[in-house]
Amino acid sequence: MKNYTGQDSLSKTLEALNSKNIKRVFYVACGGSSALTYSSKYIIDRDSKTLSAEVYNSNEFIYRNPKLLDEDSLVIAISHLGNTPETTAAAEFAQRKGATVVSFTYESESPLAKASHYRIDYQYGPQVNPADSRNVLIIQLTLGLLKIKEDDHGKYDALVSSLPELDDTVKKAMETYRDKSIKFANKYKDENMIYTMASGSNYGVAYTFAICILMEAQWINSHAIHAGEFFHGPFEIVDKNTPFVLLLGLDETRFMEERALKFLNKYGEKLYILDAKDFDLSKVDESIHGEITSVIQLYVLRSLSREFAEVRNHPLETRRYMHKVEY
Amino acid sequence: MKNYTGQDSLSKTLEALNSKNIKRVFYVACGGSSALTYSSKYIIDRDSKTLSAEVYNSNEFIYRNPKLLDEDSLVIAISHLGNTPETTAAAEFAQRKGATVVSFTYESESPLAKASHYRIDYQYGPQVNPADSRNVLIIQLTLGLLKIKEDDHGKYDALVSSLPELDDTVKKAMETYRDKSIKFANKYKDENMIYTMASGSNYGVAYTFAICILMEAQWINSHAIHAGEFFHGPFEIVDKNTPFVLLLGLDETRFMEERALKFLNKYGEKLYILDAKDFDLSKVDESIHGEITSVIQLYVLRSLSREFAEVRNHPLETRRYMHKVEY
Repeated sequence: MKNYTGQDSLSKTLEALNSKNIKRVFYVACGGSSALTYSSKYIIDRDSKTLSAEVYNSNEFIYRNPKLLDEDSLVIAISHLGNTPETTAAAEFAQRKGATVVSFTYESESPLAKASHYRIDYQYGPQVNPADSRNVLIIQLTLGLLKIKEDDHGKYDALVSSLPELDDTVKKAMETYRDKSIKFANKYKDENMIYTMASGSNYGVAYTFAICILMEAQWINSHAIHAGEFFHGPFEIVDKNTPFVLLLGLDETRFMEERALKFLNKYGEKLYILDAKDFDLSKVDESIHGEITSVIQLYVLRSLSREFAEVRNHPLETRRYMHKVEY
Repeated sequence: MKNYTGQDSLSKTLEALNSKNIKRVFYVACGGSSALTYSSKYIIDRDSKTLSAEVYNSNEFIYRNPKLLDEDSLVIAISHLGNTPETTAAAEFAQRKGATVVSFTYESESPLAKASHYRIDYQYGPQVNPADSRNVLIIQLTLGLLKIKEDDHGKYDALVSSLPELDDTVKKAMETYRDKSIKFANKYKDENMIYTMASGSNYGVAYTFAICILMEAQWINSHAIHAGEFFHGPFEIVDKNTPFVLLLGLDETRFMEERALKFLNKYGEKLYILDAKDFDLSKVDESIHGEITSVIQLYVLRSLSREFAEVRNHPLETRRYMHKVEY
């Protein structure tokens, strides 16, 4: 088996965590990095009898100053370049409280790396094998934590044994959705507002597509609606002219997404339905289909975002404020 | 002192909870009812060394099925009429897990009331004294829980002693913002999208204004942005044509809202800035200014919503789907 990037640092980190008393896990990051951790909180909430999990924006974490943050806490801090000031500050803040800090940052000498006890190595970029990406490694760390501290129901090993086929699985899913993505982007390139929606472990994908792709990279208004909240306010906005990107996953909350789908099929029209049941997951251990769905959905939506960028002649990298003005 | 509705049921509930072992609090509700609990989670996160707190949409709670939900859990379930099916189901689900269920429902014979161990009484409607509303009573229950289980730093009694002046305080705040609300609603009545933004204990207010007022009651697109997340994606959407309702509170996270304000003042133009520093809080105990802000802000935004409804000739009660079609 190929030696995937990150596996060594992840194993060593888990080994170190094994001897520590951990009662609480705080996932601390901003924007798209934070969105990658929603599925991990889902796993801990659902499966752990000893750990609690929180997802905090880095500055919210610092200013809220959770009283339960202490030497029995594990803080998982994420910033790709490791130079997001508030995430580095959050890691330093956590260290002062006695917490153990593990970071996902690409740069081994970055401020965040220096503010962490352990750093997980990973690869980055459109051509990278998903097995080498932080997207998968964050989930793997979470399952590993359950394995060493409690009971992961064999899911950690199931994920590791599925890594060799993950790249092909993701590519197939992207191919399956290729035509649909091209069609949707072409048809709705001039829309002013596109909603996204999901529940459970996929909600982070809906969130990141809304804020990092539509709003940040395409300047299209958006809002990630929770599928369970949809029927308690948001659904009144629906009509045949309101575009929706709806994710259907394979976790225990799928019912909520299906209920939203039924409604959107009846009262909406401009729909991009991304259903994990369309994916060929035959090479992924069945026990982790729910866990891996968010990763695959994110890759499919990145293809969709490239189609939007092309047809709208608005490159994904175009910014008007970020790193250009003071804020 | 006037005998406020709800105080008796609240005192009796706290007395009953006193003898129970509580390690976790789950706030379980949908939409606007759920939004009322964000400030309570904030209080527990910040102040409690023994309790953890979660806010879940009712169906997400059931399907996620948190493993930590057990006989040491307190579930606070909220549904005004007490007939939201998923919230009643969540209360029943929690009871089966051995948890203690306290509900906020107006109807003493409602399905939710019947599925709860304890029910907090309250008043409802535009003319009601805020001291009698669930908005305040939810926060009071949370502070009471800290008082009996740990240490509320005197905040429970500070809130109770501030109740007699709360109505005047709220009315003054609404009066202070009256002209601004009329002006904003008139000027931006034809907008297609209005963002809201806040952080910390006020975020729930931004959320409920986005989903229950703008989207549900006015059919205007919206999205409640977290002020700390703003600079990690969402802010790229800002220009002189993008309306924002920004809340500034008095809790520890105010810095994030001030940072967002600075940016919006520079690059935005259609702004409704709701700053709690404009409120006359001289009759409210200083120790709970941060805790009470979200309540007052919600009343001010309800005035704003009435201005929108009038000038847009779109009554707040108009629905196209809710209770009209199957979903």
